[in-house]
Amino acid sequence: MEIDGKPYRTIWVEEPGRTVGIIDQTKLPHRFETLTLASMEEAAVAISDMYVRGAPLIGATAAYGFALAMNEDPSDTGVQAAYDRLYRTRPTAVNLRWALDEMRVLVDNRAAADRASLAWERAAEICDADVEISKAIGRNGLPLIEAIAAEKPAGEPVNVLTHCNAGWLATVDWGTATAPIYMAYEKGIAVHVWVDETRPRNQGASLTAWELGRHGVDHTLIADNVGGHLMQHGLVDLCIVGTDRTTASGDVCNKIGTYLKALAAKDNEVPFYVALPSTTIDWTVHDGVKEIPIEQRNGEELTRITGRTDADELVTVDIAPEGTMARNDAFDVTPARLVSGLITERGVCEASEVGLKGLFEAG
Amino acid sequence: MEIDGKPYRTIWVEEPGRTVGIIDQTKLPHRFETLTLASMEEAAVAISDMYVRGAPLIGATAAYGFALAMNEDPSDTGVQAAYDRLYRTRPTAVNLRWALDEMRVLVDNRAAADRASLAWERAAEICDADVEISKAIGRNGLPLIEAIAAEKPAGEPVNVLTHCNAGWLATVDWGTATAPIYMAYEKGIAVHVWVDETRPRNQGASLTAWELGRHGVDHTLIADNVGGHLMQHGLVDLCIVGTDRTTASGDVCNKIGTYLKALAAKDNEVPFYVALPSTTIDWTVHDGVKEIPIEQRNGEELTRITGRTDADELVTVDIAPEGTMARNDAFDVTPARLVSGLITERGVCEASEVGLKGLFEAG
Repeated sequence: MEIDGKPYRTIWVEEPGRTVGIIDQTKLPHRFETLTLASMEEAAVAISDMYVRGAPLIGATAAYGFALAMNEDPSDTGVQAAYDRLYRTRPTAVNLRWALDEMRVLVDNRAAADRASLAWERAAEICDADVEISKAIGRNGLPLIEAIAAEKPAGEPVNVLTHCNAGWLATVDWGTATAPIYMAYEKGIAVHVWVDETRPRNQGASLTAWELGRHGVDHTLIADNVGGHLMQHGLVDLCIVGTDRTTASGDVCNKIGTYLKALAAKDNEVPFYVALPSTTIDWTVHDGVKEIPIEQRNGEELTRITGRTDADELVTVDIAPEGTMARNDAFDVTPARLVSGLITERGVCEASEVGLKGLFEAG
Repeated sequence: MEIDGKPYRTIWVEEPGRTVGIIDQTKLPHRFETLTLASMEEAAVAISDMYVRGAPLIGATAAYGFALAMNEDPSDTGVQAAYDRLYRTRPTAVNLRWALDEMRVLVDNRAAADRASLAWERAAEICDADVEISKAIGRNGLPLIEAIAAEKPAGEPVNVLTHCNAGWLATVDWGTATAPIYMAYEKGIAVHVWVDETRPRNQGASLTAWELGRHGVDHTLIADNVGGHLMQHGLVDLCIVGTDRTTASGDVCNKIGTYLKALAAKDNEVPFYVALPSTTIDWTVHDGVKEIPIEQRNGEELTRITGRTDADELVTVDIAPEGTMARNDAFDVTPARLVSGLITERGVCEASEVGLKGLFEAG
């Protein structure tokens, strides 16, 4: 997508075979800065310190981290060390493991001298493949927006509500939940996005509002409390959110608060869609609420916040009474019964075992 | 209630017939400071600049502001000027107008020389009456908590979720939604409160967490996004919230986001109660969603926030991308069908016209 008119991906090769560029997402939305990764260790830190985040982008960064490692030590020992170091960065990210397994299998029976060039090539392929998946999700979700636009008076935008950041910043490009929105925008369809702030980490305010704004997509920031009220008053035509993990039965584990929006959508007959690459489907889990363990993060994410002062300095401040206990569940589960449909790279299906198997069982 | 062991009301007479004390609520939760109001103008500013807030406390402050005015100019002109000045501070607050009407009627046909002492006496009565209403709400709501406690294993607390601040800081003492909680605490019932942060003005984090903590009531701060997830996992026994306006049919207009919690409570069969003094009932309104206009406040309440730095300085920072448009609806309406019951000073009733008339029609 574009940042103030200039096309970007979230990760790119700077010097072919030598260095990789990323956006330092920890500084958003206050500063737009890019960083050069010139070593495996720098790539590892970029993942663990969340300069990059979002499962697809983590996978892509790990792949390039592995390629950088092959420049440094392409021996069998080097391969194992790179795998271990990069795997330790965010051990629960599915795409991280997948990308590292891909890279190790690729180089395993090849001469050490060939490993670097193979790895650089494969990392680029992984990025391109991720872009293709996002674009397919976008193409498959676009008709939902087009159908609503066709029913609206000319010039009235389609109002899409989204939660958290399932945007291009979380992938290599296009995003998942945002892909149909960007596609609609590219086609000249009037679209307006309600961006949930997404407490406590504010990914909506910090990342989604930023990326939509830089690309030029009309949007309005709202507190997480507001969506239900907007739906009661007919101001939301469609919800599209992402997912971190999708059960075989179509339950969706996504950023905390997604469930509340799905309840409001159901109560007001607003379509509620979830966009996902099939890599998020966990065929072993059937009851998301009962079976998926939810990460509890540090309460300081709720009681402290970083912003910029009028003097343009970044400071972190306490916003709760000193010593307040806070509980910080990172995700919740939206039962399939509240989901209108799943938008995948293979098409849109019902949020159910039948729906998912219809798209994916044939392989 | 108590602040670190010392009993307080939110407003009190300092020098009888001369000055009034209040808590400067704009500084909470970062600083606990009290202020002396020595003139009608100071009382007016305390209301308009939100040193005091909450409908009952605004009414009480206006009453004392009127008494201060009678010290300054007890002539008919002075009465009218005081009424007009104080009424202008927050023109939409029902209790403000009610308190000022009370005071004006009280002094209207009395000699100017008697007006000040009459006004001081009536202001004190207004405060005491408000405390009695809160205590009655507390006594009427207490059995809901006791019934849940009786079903729990010994030592396991009753988990009550609340949204925004319908606490003692919004009234003269005890609060509305918090009154049953404080009563349970006073009776030695184990009670734990989930405190919704309540974006964008953070009244939960700034006021409710502060007042519960200072009084010694066990509580945990959560993001507004979390309540539904906690209910899915059986971690909420009861919701109690306040209301700014209650329709004749039992719809409840309360702080934005209340509706989402009510939906989650319904979906998980968690009782959802609303505590209210009967002054919030608007018998002229029947369909809250359709008829109640919702105040839209400045988007900066969402994009800027005040906190304290590690050096204990208070600073205001921007937390959204520069230039981001934000929409800030202050309230939403929870339809009566989602409300388990209304806790009033006259008893608990069904959230319906029949329920409300049963308690209040006889007068």
